[in-house]
Amino acid sequence: MIANPKINKAVKKFTDIRNHSIAICAPLEIEDYVVQPIVDVSPPKWHLGHTTWFFETFILMPHFPGYEVFDSQYNFVFNSYYETIGARVIRTDRGNLSRPSVADVYRYRQYVDEQMQAFLQSEWLTDSVESLLELGLNHEQQHQELLLTDIKYILGHNPLFPVYKKNKASEKEELVPMEMISFAEGIYEIGFSGNGFCFDNELGRHKVYLPDFKIASRAVTNGEYLQFIEDGGYTDFRHWHAEGWDWVKQNNAQSPLYWHHIDGKWMYYTLEGLQELDLEETLCHINFYEASAYAAWKGMRLPTEAEWEVASEKFKWGNRWEWTGSAYLPYPGFKKEAGAVGEYNGKFMVNQMVLRGASVATSPWHSRNTYRNFFHASLQWQFTGIRLAK
Amino acid sequence: MIANPKINKAVKKFTDIRNHSIAICAPLEIEDYVVQPIVDVSPPKWHLGHTTWFFETFILMPHFPGYEVFDSQYNFVFNSYYETIGARVIRTDRGNLSRPSVADVYRYRQYVDEQMQAFLQSEWLTDSVESLLELGLNHEQQHQELLLTDIKYILGHNPLFPVYKKNKASEKEELVPMEMISFAEGIYEIGFSGNGFCFDNELGRHKVYLPDFKIASRAVTNGEYLQFIEDGGYTDFRHWHAEGWDWVKQNNAQSPLYWHHIDGKWMYYTLEGLQELDLEETLCHINFYEASAYAAWKGMRLPTEAEWEVASEKFKWGNRWEWTGSAYLPYPGFKKEAGAVGEYNGKFMVNQMVLRGASVATSPWHSRNTYRNFFHASLQWQFTGIRLAK
Amino acid sequence: MIANPKINKAVKKFTDIRNHSIAICAPLEIEDYVVQPIVDVSPPKWHLGHTTWFFETFILMPHFPGYEVFDSQYNFVFNSYYETIGARVIRTDRGNLSRPSVADVYRYRQYVDEQMQAFLQSEWLTDSVESLLELGLNHEQQHQELLLTDIKYILGHNPLFPVYKKNKASEKEELVPMEMISFAEGIYEIGFSGNGFCFDNELGRHKVYLPDFKIASRAVTNGEYLQFIEDGGYTDFRHWHAEGWDWVKQNNAQSPLYWHHIDGKWMYYTLEGLQELDLEETLCHINFYEASAYAAWKGMRLPTEAEWEVASEKFKWGNRWEWTGSAYLPYPGFKKEAGAVGEYNGKFMVNQMVLRGASVATSPWHSRNTYRNFFHASLQWQFTGIRLAK
Amino acid sequence: MIANPKINKAVKKFTDIRNHSIAICAPLEIEDYVVQPIVDVSPPKWHLGHTTWFFETFILMPHFPGYEVFDSQYNFVFNSYYETIGARVIRTDRGNLSRPSVADVYRYRQYVDEQMQAFLQSEWLTDSVESLLELGLNHEQQHQELLLTDIKYILGHNPLFPVYKKNKASEKEELVPMEMISFAEGIYEIGFSGNGFCFDNELGRHKVYLPDFKIASRAVTNGEYLQFIEDGGYTDFRHWHAEGWDWVKQNNAQSPLYWHHIDGKWMYYTLEGLQELDLEETLCHINFYEASAYAAWKGMRLPTEAEWEVASEKFKWGNRWEWTGSAYLPYPGFKKEAGAVGEYNGKFMVNQMVLRGASVATSPWHSRNTYRNFFHASLQWQFTGIRLAK
Repeated sequence: MIANPKINKAVKKFTDIRNHSIAICAPLEIEDYVVQPIVDVSPPKWHLGHTTWFFETFILMPHFPGYEVFDSQYNFVFNSYYETIGARVIRTDRGNLSRPSVADVYRYRQYVDEQMQAFLQSEWLTDSVESLLELGLNHEQQHQELLLTDIKYILGHNPLFPVYKKNKASEKEELVPMEMISFAEGIYEIGFSGNGFCFDNELGRHKVYLPDFKIASRAVTNGEYLQFIEDGGYTDFRHWHAEGWDWVKQNNAQSPLYWHHIDGKWMYYTLEGLQELDLEETLCHINFYEASAYAAWKGMRLPTEAEWEVASEKFKWGNRWEWTGSAYLPYPGFKKEAGAVGEYNGKFMVNQMVLRGASVATSPWHSRNTYRNFFHASLQWQFTGIRLAK
Repeated sequence: MIANPKINKAVKKFTDIRNHSIAICAPLEIEDYVVQPIVDVSPPKWHLGHTTWFFETFILMPHFPGYEVFDSQYNFVFNSYYETIGARVIRTDRGNLSRPSVADVYRYRQYVDEQMQAFLQSEWLTDSVESLLELGLNHEQQHQELLLTDIKYILGHNPLFPVYKKNKASEKEELVPMEMISFAEGIYEIGFSGNGFCFDNELGRHKVYLPDFKIASRAVTNGEYLQFIEDGGYTDFRHWHAEGWDWVKQNNAQSPLYWHHIDGKWMYYTLEGLQELDLEETLCHINFYEASAYAAWKGMRLPTEAEWEVASEKFKWGNRWEWTGSAYLPYPGFKKEAGAVGEYNGKFMVNQMVLRGASVATSPWHSRNTYRNFFHASLQWQFTGIRLAK
Repeated sequence: MIANPKINKAVKKFTDIRNHSIAICAPLEIEDYVVQPIVDVSPPKWHLGHTTWFFETFILMPHFPGYEVFDSQYNFVFNSYYETIGARVIRTDRGNLSRPSVADVYRYRQYVDEQMQAFLQSEWLTDSVESLLELGLNHEQQHQELLLTDIKYILGHNPLFPVYKKNKASEKEELVPMEMISFAEGIYEIGFSGNGFCFDNELGRHKVYLPDFKIASRAVTNGEYLQFIEDGGYTDFRHWHAEGWDWVKQNNAQSPLYWHHIDGKWMYYTLEGLQELDLEETLCHINFYEASAYAAWKGMRLPTEAEWEVASEKFKWGNRWEWTGSAYLPYPGFKKEAGAVGEYNGKFMVNQMVLRGASVATSPWHSRNTYRNFFHASLQWQFTGIRLAK
Repeated sequence: MIANPKINKAVKKFTDIRNHSIAICAPLEIEDYVVQPIVDVSPPKWHLGHTTWFFETFILMPHFPGYEVFDSQYNFVFNSYYETIGARVIRTDRGNLSRPSVADVYRYRQYVDEQMQAFLQSEWLTDSVESLLELGLNHEQQHQELLLTDIKYILGHNPLFPVYKKNKASEKEELVPMEMISFAEGIYEIGFSGNGFCFDNELGRHKVYLPDFKIASRAVTNGEYLQFIEDGGYTDFRHWHAEGWDWVKQNNAQSPLYWHHIDGKWMYYTLEGLQELDLEETLCHINFYEASAYAAWKGMRLPTEAEWEVASEKFKWGNRWEWTGSAYLPYPGFKKEAGAVGEYNGKFMVNQMVLRGASVATSPWHSRNTYRNFFHASLQWQFTGIRLAK
């Protein structure tokens, strides 16, 4: 086979992204790959298997003649929400499965990676498959972020507070002064319009009418949020949505996730271990209820996703996923794609809130200002923060 | 006291609306006032007490010098979500309270009504209280609709299928032909702007940019929905949101609420008793998941609330609350009012979908095309329907 | 028909017992008949209907030619555990049924009573039916006690603490001195052996070998139990079974049911209303876990049911159901009767503890020292007490 | 130190028993040590740590001067029910803990074992400590059986049905003919009376009076139980306790645990993998409800624990734990020991049924005919069987 730079680049990109998942897991003990402390967190070995299953199921099986499935039972174990493909494992069961072992999963990855590398250099790589490949790589990157947030949850809820990695790239960024940036009312456009990859939920660039608004130049810090706590923020229902207040009471919530008040001092679990809370650091791990309550306490609000996107060129973002005041709904003209891949995003468009930006856990080349992330309003375990608006 | 037509009119309006609640309950047995089959349904006697408590607590107690509370323990029993006022009864407990008796509640109503009538003719009726009065009467009307929907649930879930009232105003309307009405893209205005009463969530008339859209001239009928059922609508996950599909499976859902397949025939429980399903009647009692799945099956979608409001002058509405594709969120510039009344709407603005229009159960003079009703996506027990858009 | 004293006596006995149920309900408001605050408590109207259904189903329908069922749907509503007879109403649903109304239930009672009176004077009253009649009357008496305990629960869990009846026969008895009565080891006989009525679970008088034991001359008082509370009885796990300790923590238990610590004083809800706790009164409304923990704290234990029965002639009993240390299991040679009546007792013989004696709520002529009452270890709402042994 | 045969024997016994736990785990993958599919099953690494913690906490820390705790946080992780010693890990959380790692646990075992070996050869080994040692070793053996049953559950509920060990000692025994052995009524003695070790719940040998009874010469086989299934045993409520019938319906139970009806054939998961069901093998993995229902269907009953113990010399036992008809209650004169060890058995004496005998999973030298095993009536995962009586 004659060297083809485009193909070599595709193989390299595929291999780099796939290897990054493995690099994320390198500091783990085998035991860390297996557990699932809550339903929203998946065992790391499941992430490694599930992203592999994606390439096997959507690319190799239908498009690579002669491909032999690694293990026909893995579909049952590593399928996710894709009802089209077959019976899924009930999500709560993932933490009960000791097999396939971690070594099996790595063998599965290696087998599929080798097959993919062969496929990428073959005649079978058509344009339509290329877009599936792109989707699969972006899917892998999404799970890389989940790997980090899930690992933090698993280790951060262990009474021994194990360290994931020393000298990890800090969660901290340099703070800019807090100011409110003004935008004039008018018609703006949002949504993806470039040539590169985007998810289906970003498509359909369209006009929106925005009233005058102001948006903060930076996200809220730990120190600023601590004032809310010290002012009784978690004990005054008036700041909260009714469901948020129920969440506070049912969980006896008193601070963001991973904050621990020990011997009169606020400590914070990071991937480097338990540390004293840094008041200058950007706040992290709050849910939508907390973000809204904080904004209400400040007499402000969260930005809409349209405001955020329009304003995003005027501020630095990317350190925290920023809760917006927008529910996750289809853009005008949104269409599900045909087949199993069509289930990717559309079916989640109810009872979730949009987050914009990216976080310290987001993989490289996986950010853009049209990206629509979404989670249930009660979830705290992502690297989430607050940017105020009014 | 000299006759004052404005005052007489206020007394008459107050009395008429208050009496309408009693008229709704007239066909009930005492036992029907007491039960609470599910958490979303309240016992009729609770509705009668709670609406009375509203006038006592927000008008008579703070504004009518010398007013003596009817029973100081009733605040504990009839308070609702108003955290500002004091400890609320856990909502699930309402169906456990045999006392106060129905006769006690009627005595309570009579006492408060007489006091209110005296108050309305007194010097203490200031402008600011008048707006509280208006709120209280609209609040009463909201509970009148809930009274009917809750009575239907209570009787419709009794194995004896009791009749509420024969010759009740039918749930049926005359059908107009189904056509799709077109609207051109552009800037429109939505939100309340008149002089009369509206809820705080309608305020802030504002511009929105809408793309081209089409909206149906009438709501979907039972017959049309039956085709969805017969085409396997409840067994094909592809039509459903992920949460909707979970709802279908957990509840083994196979049809709208109150539909019963008996001896090969579709029956439907109405307030006049169990009847054969009328295929020409407008569909009723479906939740947001069902509405969305039906629209997806038709290759269409639900309208947004802005589209609905803009288009509402071009079609007949008011027979069913129509699920929109919009989440219930604050309009630009939304502000909670100060005090307990400020809790009225804002705190529910998460994880609910907007319904527009009105229904056969809505009280007279309680409809307008800016009205924003809202319920959780899973709830079926209101008189809800589907209007398609694309 | 010529007067027959035996028949007249049967009619009178039937009528007297049936009327006693109605007398128990006389002080109730209609609303009190309907509610079911917890699954263990049934609505009073259900008790009235269910006991009537027993006579209709097991006597009139099979044995009285030409009998016409009052309402064929009532079997569905008033059936209890009798799986043989047909689909039962899920027990938790009883409190959701507003119909049949209380008036309907009284009409049902009157109809069945008249039919029963005719039947009792007819040729169809055979010996085998007489034993069913006896069972039905004892069944009615069991439900009379449950009526009282359930009414106490319904009213005693209402925030208004309504009075059931003033000057009700007191729950109080005269105290005898506390002494420990000794019995020598040896073979004893327990179980029913007389000619009158007993339940199937008492049959099979049989020998048991008992070691030396001592048993208290009277039950524990409120004052004695208060010492346990004040000594931290509810905060020291060492006194409790593991399941009992879980019960304490999950329910934040701190005292018997119906005890309220208000303004530094112990109050106690009785059927005459809320009253100051009488330290000289016999303790009431504790569950098996509490009874065992108290005994452990005293360095003693609960008697076995055999010890209790053997010793019962030496002490006064009948004011409280006394928890024993015996699990509810079949006596040697126990046989279920054929047919639906056979389900009466045997199927409950797992995970329940035996109580012996009777209580202030037990109907007249419904006590004997071989009676085996039984409840789950966590239940407090019967009139239960503690007699110590060692 | 001069060789002392008694001491050498103690060291050897300690070492042998401790090593047997490790041998049981030898075939496991690291992942298998970590998961907890249901609350009743513990992760194997927890068993290994907990039994080690027992020796550290009850022997080394109080009795071996200078002993240094391996890791002070392990008490929090490996404590069980021993409320006296400190806060316990909520049992449901065990499966969420990836750390301490399996390697850590083995280091912990090695450290404690070396310290124990030194201690056993030291002057500090007094008689009272020797009885704690004996308790600790029996405790270890109890967990050895649980290790096997929990491993079977973990692997047997994995969709890949992994093999634990090929050529494992079979669960099968040679069948003797089924006959009913008769015993005459009279006074018998039960309870432990020898010199060796027994648990506190066996102590207090005492007289019981037994009526005439017959007991089967062997336990029920798979083939015999299959007749019950094929006769509709799981669909006829009349065979079942009320709670048993609820269990059947809630779990849609249709066969013993680990039975799978695949392509018209009954398969059975064993520690050697999935195999065809052997009709000649002794039935295994049924709960008390199933055991009782089977006996009722046969027109017989389960033996009481006294009958079983009295008869045990006349039949072969030890292959299955045999459900008895006796609730787990204290023997006459039962006393809890002082201190944490006193919590060992007594606090579980409610709502559990006694099992007698031993099973293929019981450790060597850990069986005797006075042994009182106990489990909740609904649990199937032990190696349990049925011996009939009448």
